[in-house]
Amino acid sequence: MRGLWLDGGALKTRVDLDTPVPPAGEALVRVVKAGVCNTDLEMVRGYFAFRGTPGHEFVGVVEEAPGDPALRGKRVVGEINAACRTCATCRARRVTHCPNRTVLGILERNGAHAQYLTLPAINLHEVPAAVPDDVAVFAEPLAAALEVREQVAVGPGDRVVVVGSGKLGTLVALSLALTGCDLVVAGRNPTTLAPLAARGLRTAAPDALPAAGADVVVECTGNADGFAIARHAVRPRGTIVLKSTYHGGLTLDVAMVVVDEVTLVGSRCGPFAPALDLLARGKIDVAPLIAARYPLEDAARAYEHAARPGTLKVLIDAA
Amino acid sequence: MRGLWLDGGALKTRVDLDTPVPPAGEALVRVVKAGVCNTDLEMVRGYFAFRGTPGHEFVGVVEEAPGDPALRGKRVVGEINAACRTCATCRARRVTHCPNRTVLGILERNGAHAQYLTLPAINLHEVPAAVPDDVAVFAEPLAAALEVREQVAVGPGDRVVVVGSGKLGTLVALSLALTGCDLVVAGRNPTTLAPLAARGLRTAAPDALPAAGADVVVECTGNADGFAIARHAVRPRGTIVLKSTYHGGLTLDVAMVVVDEVTLVGSRCGPFAPALDLLARGKIDVAPLIAARYPLEDAARAYEHAARPGTLKVLIDAA
Repeated sequence: MRGLWLDGGALKTRVDLDTPVPPAGEALVRVVKAGVCNTDLEMVRGYFAFRGTPGHEFVGVVEEAPGDPALRGKRVVGEINAACRTCATCRARRVTHCPNRTVLGILERNGAHAQYLTLPAINLHEVPAAVPDDVAVFAEPLAAALEVREQVAVGPGDRVVVVGSGKLGTLVALSLALTGCDLVVAGRNPTTLAPLAARGLRTAAPDALPAAGADVVVECTGNADGFAIARHAVRPRGTIVLKSTYHGGLTLDVAMVVVDEVTLVGSRCGPFAPALDLLARGKIDVAPLIAARYPLEDAARAYEHAARPGTLKVLIDAA
Repeated sequence: MRGLWLDGGALKTRVDLDTPVPPAGEALVRVVKAGVCNTDLEMVRGYFAFRGTPGHEFVGVVEEAPGDPALRGKRVVGEINAACRTCATCRARRVTHCPNRTVLGILERNGAHAQYLTLPAINLHEVPAAVPDDVAVFAEPLAAALEVREQVAVGPGDRVVVVGSGKLGTLVALSLALTGCDLVVAGRNPTTLAPLAARGLRTAAPDALPAAGADVVVECTGNADGFAIARHAVRPRGTIVLKSTYHGGLTLDVAMVVVDEVTLVGSRCGPFAPALDLLARGKIDVAPLIAARYPLEDAARAYEHAARPGTLKVLIDAA
């Protein structure tokens, strides 16, 4: 089959990849559309090692599901962590943290930037008919954005700052806006801030944020500058959610974290069911997030486009 | 009056200090006993600047309370943050974080290592008659230890690790043991671990802690080694409480904090009422924590003693 292949940071389009055969409990999914995420770009930049087909945002159609024939032909999105479901962590219902897990297109499992992938049947969620492919492909990043709400109670009266107006920051902001909180999106890029302002969200330059004025700050940039903005904006006893992966270390002034009793929360993958529900009810409009579309044969160009600063979501059309 | 005086890191005993005059709303307290805290030692080492009389752990007797005559003659302990009680932070009931606060012996307010101090009357708590001075003087550090329980729910079934068996680690461990949690105190110093083991607490060398085996880790060492132990011990989605002030920065592997969705919580001053209650009911036995006693005229020697590695609480007798 055709697909991308990453090896030692070198990304190539190949037409000679083996079409995967689903092992017991798994399903074969024909990829229809896939998204390019910053994590994919970071693997290409060599920030962490992965050898195989990248990609973890997709919508596709189940071609084979030996253990669950009812799944055949269903249009699905999929949770990316394939857990053992038997260890202590899984039994404690933290399956996304299973120490034996593989992760679609990220850790020891080929991903979605190819014609086919396999995932455990239990990871798949049928997409409601009303949700077009271009929208369903956002289920995974929207679920990640919604993880913030699983971790921190946010509602009316809470002063919330989202730092960063890129792909993830935009989805976090749109999902937090639904809570009725007092929200500001802080960013420097007029191109990505403008669509948020057009939807009625309040935006601000980071320098314009008041010190210690936010109950909750969600840091979506993944860089030290973004963290410094978050630290400036959060109030004593407030919470900073670290929503984006950082490459390398971040030097923290721990004394001030202790004195101000700030809480830092790392945040990764989130719940698919509410993400699909919001998409199906049209509560999150993802259309303005789509920056470009490339066919699978031009997937390497899709990565180049996605890597340009200020680019929102680049989609790969695999159908 | 007699008291310690710190200026540019130089600590001196002086006999010519002005006896303070309580401003409106404040009380004059004659210090009976005071404790030496690591924060005091760090100020002497120059980790942060303070000019004045240090000391913030005390029990004393109210000599004058112009606005609250009923306080006169009462034996009291005192909350150390003197807040404005009018700003937005105070109105939000975060008085220990008041941006206009002074802090006894730490920030723009002379402290307890002298014959007299002043504090707002509202900061004072009468000590129950059953609590001796040697016990009451632990109200402040025990309150700080109890702050952990204000911030993180801990109870039976929770696997908790306290890193460090010094003054603060011991009080944190004793107060967490009361919750019925599954507790281990990790430390390297047999002298400070032994009294904990003698009271039936489980102790362990840091290297013996299983990886990712703790739901909650309370880091009480204030150094990078202690943080590395905490990071090793905490499970995915677990919580690390940063209970001790760190000097300088700590370089954090934020990527792993995000991937493991770990929560870090800074923790500082805590509630006095439950601390006094536990001391009055004999639920926390502080007697084995007392390492030495010095009269106020030898307070500089008390600091030298307290600075020796592995030393628990050194008391200053000001009466």
